[in-house]
Formats: sequence, structure tokens, C-alpha cells
Amino acid sequence: MSPPLSPLIGVLGGMGPLATVDFLHKVVGSTPAGRDQDHVPLVVWNVPQIPDRQQALAGVGESPLPAMLRGIERLNGSGATRIVIPCNTAHLWIDALVAASAAPLIHIVDAAIAAVERRGADAGPIGILATRATLNAKLYQERLDARGLSWLIPADDEIDTLFTPGCYAVKQNHLDRGGALFESAARKLVERGARTLILACTEVPVGLAHIRSNLMKMSVDPTQALADACIQYWLEAREHRRGQENLSFQLLISDKNQKLE
Amino acid sequence: MSPPLSPLIGVLGGMGPLATVDFLHKVVGSTPAGRDQDHVPLVVWNVPQIPDRQQALAGVGESPLPAMLRGIERLNGSGATRIVIPCNTAHLWIDALVAASAAPLIHIVDAAIAAVERRGADAGPIGILATRATLNAKLYQERLDARGLSWLIPADDEIDTLFTPGCYAVKQNHLDRGGALFESAARKLVERGARTLILACTEVPVGLAHIRSNLMKMSVDPTQALADACIQYWLEAREHRRGQENLSFQLLISDKNQKLE
Repeated sequence: MSPPLSPLIGVLGGMGPLATVDFLHKVVGSTPAGRDQDHVPLVVWNVPQIPDRQQALAGVGESPLPAMLRGIERLNGSGATRIVIPCNTAHLWIDALVAASAAPLIHIVDAAIAAVERRGADAGPIGILATRATLNAKLYQERLDARGLSWLIPADDEIDTLFTPGCYAVKQNHLDRGGALFESAARKLVERGARTLILACTEVPVGLAHIRSNLMKMSVDPTQALADACIQYWLEAREHRRGQENLSFQLLISDKNQKLE
Repeated sequence: MSPPLSPLIGVLGGMGPLATVDFLHKVVGSTPAGRDQDHVPLVVWNVPQIPDRQQALAGVGESPLPAMLRGIERLNGSGATRIVIPCNTAHLWIDALVAASAAPLIHIVDAAIAAVERRGADAGPIGILATRATLNAKLYQERLDARGLSWLIPADDEIDTLFTPGCYAVKQNHLDRGGALFESAARKLVERGARTLILACTEVPVGLAHIRSNLMKMSVDPTQALADACIQYWLEAREHRRGQENLSFQLLISDKNQKLE
């Protein structure tokens, strides 16, 4: 019989590559660790040759699902015990990915909504910065509605002229431009009454952090929330494992004692 | 017959975890890319539960080799066509790792020395900032000697009081302190005549970049050099693959034409 798998976070990355690095940086930077060995074990499938998600959902590109399923297969093959995807839009395919994965997935929106709830009743109204596809699928809105939290989203023309160009600017490593575009899109939401922002596309915190935007202070960052959820899982799984090892050790001792009697 | 493997860089990471993120950041940030799909495909085994390399080499800890070999096995299993290790000290076990890997390894010191050579004849004398184990093994010195480049290294007490504490400070995410300690160690080398520095431990560029040290300008960063080597491999392998695909396509066409005749 093979031993139970060690806790290992599998990361389906590459959507985009810089957002994946940002996620990994947040995991490492937020882990309480006194030495290398205390850090979260991760296996990262950062293969960005996945067809563009926004284009596929707009009906002008091939589906990213087969490439994502290959990544899920590799991560399971590497022994991942949980899988995360640091890309909000990719979660539109979550049902097919969950169905294909032995390892459970930690959902980025669940992690983000938990972070919003920790802000308490003063959080709303909540401005959602996300791709048109994420907004159309109501990935965030339905969960906020269920909690009685009001929300608002960018207007169509704000998505076209500010959000989407910002997103592709970050993907091209033009972080100043991307950050400025995201900030303009966010300010429109604040002008219309948003008291909290959800940076619900993983390029957004990369761009806003790069320009050191003040809006970060009033924002929930789903990338950070997902990193925190991974750290929480690792700390709990490690404790559980230590408990089991202690139990096995005690059973072994008691077994030996019985044989000696 | 299975198709030839797509180019894929395997990263044996976790030594330390932040140095691995720094490496990935340098790969993504230095790749000429207009969209996600242009970026280097990477699979990263970032499992830091590897016994401490410096302690093992000082004879006060268990060997990291079995854990490193498990990582090499997983990366090969994931389809890696090249493997890199963003940790200089880990390269003391390179022969055993190369022997166990189907995918060739790209050696961090080879990449770094190539970067030193690109600086030309004015580079020397070269100050080497590295762990005691890396210095004792003459990982850098022998290659510099072979090229007629003079070098100097920290004194024993500078390693004990500046370099090693700097290294462990970065591993504990105390980047201000780590950066300041590394800078003090580096200044001693500059005072003794170093005209170029090699930051030959992957924690060093993380610390010095964090404090925005001026010494970065006179430094060769092996992490960046390794990232550049990976990008070079990816660009060449992709071109080669495209050439093969074009050739296959032409053969297919010519085959069809022959059948039609």
C-alpha cells in the first residue's frame, strides 16, 4: 500500500504568466516561515500555450479547455493534493476541470468572497473589476447577492477602453500603462459609490501594485486571498499529518510493548 | 510512436522558495512576448522540504540529494526537456542529478560565466559572493581561472558575520536586513579591488534588489543569466519546431501531390 500523499499545492498557471509569478510571490511572502523547509510545497504548471480565454468566450478563438485539462492531468500526476488556478476567467470552465481532477480545487472566488466578508458590513457597495466574460457569467455578483452585499460593475465602454486594454498591457509587460488604465477604470467605480473594490482579474493587482496605486488599500485582492487559502491548507494539513505520525508512532510503540509482554 | 516532446523548462526550485520566485519573475520579465502564448513554458517543482544544503556540506545535517532526486524524477515525468536549478550551492550535487535525469541540465555557473565574458576584458578582478560551500568547491574560481580572469572572495569572518546571516535573513523574508548584510559583504570586496561582482547565491540578488543597492550595476546576476539561457533555449527550440512542422507540412503536400500524379 502506498503511503498517503504529502500535502502539495498544484498551480495551473500561465494565465497570464506574470499573474502566476505574482501569486507565487504572495504565497511565499505571506507564509509564516523561519527557514526554507517551512514554506508551502508547490508544483506549478506554468505553460502559457493555452488559447486566450477572453477571445474564446467572445466566440473568436478556440477553447482553452483541452490545454487546461492537460495541465490538470500533469498536476495530478505530480501528486498534487489541492489545485488552484490564479486566473478568474479560467474559472468559467471550473466544472469540467473539477470533474477531471482527483485533487479538489480551491476556488478563487470563494477565497475572495471570504476576504470580502472579513471586511464586515461596511464593505459595500462593492466595485468589481473583471473581464467581460467573468462579469457576464456573474461569477462574483451571484455570490455577493447571496450575502446581501450590493455591487457595481464597469460600463461597457469602460471595459472596452480601460479594462481590456489594461489587461493586455500587463500581459505584454507594459505595467505602467496597464496600471494606469486599471486605475482609471477603478476610479469610475469609486465615483459611482464603490467603497470596496474586488480586483477580480489577476492582471489587475499586478498593474495597480506596479504603479503603487492608493486604491490597493480599499481593495480585496483575490490573488492574495487564494494564496492565503493555500497557506491555511498547508498549515492545517501539516498539523494533521504530524498528528497522524505521532499516532502511528504511539500505535507502533504500543504494538511493540504488547509483543514484549 | 509518440510525438517529440514540446520544449518545456523544468525548474527544481525551493532552494530557497523566494529565489525560485525571483528566477521565474526574471524569466517572464525578460521574454520578448506580445501575448501570454509567447512566454516560456515552465513546470516548477517548488517543494522546499529539502534538507539544508549549507548545513549538509558543513557536516551537520542530512543530505539533500534524495529530495533533489525526487524533484528531478517528477520534472522528467512531467515532460521537461531541460532542467534548471536556481540555487548555486545545489550545483555541488550536479553530477548525481545529471546522471539521474533524461532531460539535460543547464548549469547556472556556465550561464553566469558567459554573462561575465560578455562584459569583456575590463571585468576583472571579480568579487565572488557565495556560500562557504560554493567557494570551497571552487565552483566559480576554476572557471574564471580557465579564462584568465582574476578573482577574490570574502574572508572567513566576513562569511560568518555578513554573508551567511544575510542568506538566512532572506530565507526568513527579512529582506531589508538581508540586503544590508549582503551589501556590507560586497563593499569589502570592492574595497579590495573588485571591479565586477558575481552574486553567486540566489538569495543575494533578492536582498540587494530589495534595498535598491547601487552595487547591482557592477554585478553579474546568475539568476538573470540562467533566466536568459532558458529564454534562449525556448526561442531556439520553438524556431526549430516550427521549421520541422513546416518541413512535415511540405513533405505531406509533396506526398499528396505524388499520389495525385
